[in-house]
Formats: sequence, C-alpha cells, structure tokens
Amino acid sequence: MSIAAASPCAVTFADAPACEGALLLPVRGVRGGLAFAVQDWVAQEVPVALEFNGISHAVMLATPMDLEDFALGFSLTEGILDGAHELYGVEAEPSEQGITVRLEVAGAAFARLKQKRRSMAGRTGCGLCGTESLAHVSRALPVLDDGAPIDRRAIAKAMARLQAQQTLQQATGAVHAAAWCSAQGEVVLLREDVGRHNALDKLVGALASAEVEAAGGFIAVTSRASFEMVQKTAMAGVPLLAAVSAPTSFAVATAERARLTLVGFARKDDLVVYCRPERLRN
Amino acid sequence: MSIAAASPCAVTFADAPACEGALLLPVRGVRGGLAFAVQDWVAQEVPVALEFNGISHAVMLATPMDLEDFALGFSLTEGILDGAHELYGVEAEPSEQGITVRLEVAGAAFARLKQKRRSMAGRTGCGLCGTESLAHVSRALPVLDDGAPIDRRAIAKAMARLQAQQTLQQATGAVHAAAWCSAQGEVVLLREDVGRHNALDKLVGALASAEVEAAGGFIAVTSRASFEMVQKTAMAGVPLLAAVSAPTSFAVATAERARLTLVGFARKDDLVVYCRPERLRN
Repeated sequence: MSIAAASPCAVTFADAPACEGALLLPVRGVRGGLAFAVQDWVAQEVPVALEFNGISHAVMLATPMDLEDFALGFSLTEGILDGAHELYGVEAEPSEQGITVRLEVAGAAFARLKQKRRSMAGRTGCGLCGTESLAHVSRALPVLDDGAPIDRRAIAKAMARLQAQQTLQQATGAVHAAAWCSAQGEVVLLREDVGRHNALDKLVGALASAEVEAAGGFIAVTSRASFEMVQKTAMAGVPLLAAVSAPTSFAVATAERARLTLVGFARKDDLVVYCRPERLRN
Repeated sequence: MSIAAASPCAVTFADAPACEGALLLPVRGVRGGLAFAVQDWVAQEVPVALEFNGISHAVMLATPMDLEDFALGFSLTEGILDGAHELYGVEAEPSEQGITVRLEVAGAAFARLKQKRRSMAGRTGCGLCGTESLAHVSRALPVLDDGAPIDRRAIAKAMARLQAQQTLQQATGAVHAAAWCSAQGEVVLLREDVGRHNALDKLVGALASAEVEAAGGFIAVTSRASFEMVQKTAMAGVPLLAAVSAPTSFAVATAERARLTLVGFARKDDLVVYCRPERLRN
C-alpha cells in the first residue's frame, strides 16, 4: 500500500495523553514496512514577540507555555533586568501571527535597554541577540563562587529523573528540557521548549519567580552545551551545568571565564568534566 | 579516586583522528565507575560576523569551516542574494574575537539589504534574523513544483550514508549535519556545524556554488525540523526535507504553504510524513 493512499484511522500514534504545548495533527508514514495514517502530537512552535514598556525588542520561536517565565528569564540572562523586582507586569496577547508578550519594567531597566539599543541603532542582530559586531559577543559575566561541591551521583540521579518528567518531549519527541536540581539531585523546577535556549530562559525565570537560592544546586539540560547555554547559566548564578550531550570549545572557554563547572555526556553514571572539576565530589 | 585527582594521560578519549573544526582539550570524568583524565576532541564554536560591502550585518556562532559556503547560503536563504551570481567575492579574516567574513555583493543585492535594514532602523532582532515584529516572521516563500516522486527507500539509504559521513560529529558528538541527496539516495554534498541552521546554510551555499540542480533531490538533516529549517529548504528550491527527529507545528504549517514534503523520524526504514505525502513513492 502506498503512503499517500493509506486510509486514515482515528487512533493516535504517540501513546501519550493530550498535553499543553502540542497539537494533534494528521500524519502518514511507514513503520516496520506497513503504511499508516493516524493522528500524532506535534510540538507547538510559535513566533513570540517581546515588548518592553511598549517597545518591540525581539521575536523568538518558542513553545507557547510558561511565557511569563520566559519573558522574565530572557530579560535576566540578557542583562536587561537586574532582578525580578524590576519586572512590574507581564501580559501575553495571542494574535493570528503569534503571541506578543508585553513586559512592564522599572525605569532603570528600560534606560539600560534603550542604551543597549542605541549602541546598535540601524543595525540588526542575528543568531546572537542584537549582536552585530564581534566585540559585543563576550559580555561581562559573573564569576561564580566555589560553594559546596556537588556529588557526581546527584547528577546521575537528576538526569534519570529529568527524563521521566519531560511530558511534552514524551508526547512529541521535539522539545528540550532544562531543570534546576538540588545538590541532592532532586529535580525541583523543569521547563520544556522547542528551543534549548528558551527552555533555559524559562527555567531561569521560574527560579527567579520562586526565589530559589539557585547557587546551591545545578542546572541539567537535555541538549548540548553551547556558549549561550553556559552564558545563561552563569548569568543565573548557577555554578554547574550538566548536559546530556557534548559542549563546544567556546562553551568550555566561557565556563573557564565564569569559573563554572561544565559537565557533558552526563549519561547514567558516566560523565565528562570540561572545566572546574574540583566542584565535583566523587 | 576522585575526578579532580585523576592523573592526566596522553591518550585521546575519542577514538578519532584529528579533524577540521575540532580542538583537542584536556578533560576528566568517570566512565564505568573509573575516573579518567585524557585529551578529547571538542567541536569549535566561534563568533562569525557577516559584513556586506563593508556593513556589519549579523554575528552567528558557527564552526569555522566551509565559511564561504555559509556566507553564500545564509545570503540566499535570508533573501539578500537572488543567486550566486550576485556574490562577487568572500574573504574570511580571523581575529582574537572571532572571524569576520566580508562579502562583496552586487549593487542590487546591497540595495535590497539596505532596504531591509532601513525598515528596522534602531531595532534589534533576536532568534529570528533581524525580525522584531510578528508581521515579518512569515515571509514570501517559493511554492515548490511537484516534480518527480522520491522513493522512500532512497531516504532510508541516504540517512544510513549520512551518518557514516559525519566526520566532525564522530570526533566530537556536538555537531549537526545537512546533506543534499540525489533521488537515488546518494549523499552528494554534506556540511557540518554546531548549529543546525548553519549546517543547512552551508549546504545551500555549497549547492549554489556547485550549480547542482537541487530541485531533483532532497535534503536530509540529523536534527529536528523547525520552521526555519523548512523555510531555508524552500528558499533553496528543494521540495523534500527529511529529518531524523520530529518537526514542530509551525514547520508543518510552513511546509504546507511552500508545498514542501516534510518527513520526520526518518530512522532505518521507518518514517513519518507531515505534509505532501504524494511526493513519496512507496
């Protein structure tokens, strides 16, 4: 039977219940040599525009859930807000083209944003938020305290639990997760998104809202560790980032600069440490 | 033995020869309960600034190989160039902060870029290249011809070959690949990068340079299929995109708009088709 001719049936392909951030779409395909036509969950990706005190700043493609966390986290990791206290209100307005998230921020933060934008008037940024020249790539990062060491078994435990809690990923296979974990390896907060940077920004926003003492734990991500993932983790004041997959060379260099412990290939009981291994306890 | 105390040895952890786009770094870790300290290959990620006729346009984080392909492909998929004939020259200049890639483009292309930039003067784009308002997200896309159908076995064949040809991925575990494959499933051109968008842009540039009749084959990627991956594939005039992982809802909607056949979860002989299944032959 051909793929296009398979008659649709009503069962869902993914054996998962409905969940936020996913749409049920008709799909066709071949599995084990047999053509099928079913309904399947697909992760939502929506243009999300961030507006600060009425001024458009950026558009990201994100999964439309936890957008208040996203707005706050993005503002913190991009250095627009100095803390959650500078955010007075967030409102998300859906339209046919996407979602506009309107942030009302303190005068000091808005002045900071205007200064940032003035320095790049008439220019566009791409890939890196608002960055059009090499000189602006590596901005000032906090230098993280040594703090208490983290047991490597806590990382293994967190990684196992993280997987079990990725509900949107289980339904769609299309999203990344970022979680803040206690020093004992408990997954305390977890956020998912089609973009790994967005998942991390959502987590940072959720941490700030919940007033979690983030420096006492670590962040675990289901993706690779790139420069921006390390930068965001450092901006959130978290001294250890553990990734399921590999880091990049720039991520390692940036982690060195911020004195962040960078762990990659955290799978079962194995892991690789790329810098600051002294923060890990065996 | 503790992770930090393991004594370094000279062997490489990854059993792979030196390759372009990777650096050998000292790492430590635990595998199978044993602490180790070795040298390992880490994928390079470098800030790359694109400059058109002397004007800075954007900075991306990319793996510093095939940068001429990248510059050409980015310019094509972003709609700055109408074709490779509008690019007169490319020069890459490394500095301590990254690499500046200088493009010399035709007057018509430069006028197009200036127009594009004028419409967003004083604004920054983020996530989506130079986009700060929702109205600009979904730009005009070519509507792809039906063309000759592709046998689903050609996709399975290409996916198997793709994996074998990812040399940088084999050394580092940190990069994505995008490949153009013939209707028979031969991998004709393949590019790798830490960013999946960059890998695809490099491929599109390589296709244009080689004057390949791209509409006759398909593009295979090792990542998920998001909106931007579909948009870039459509801009390159390729009617089928096959991804190893899942698509997003916006990718499916965009593929519908461009009449692109979108295949996800292409693994061994299995696949899922999200739109335009009639272009697949069983």
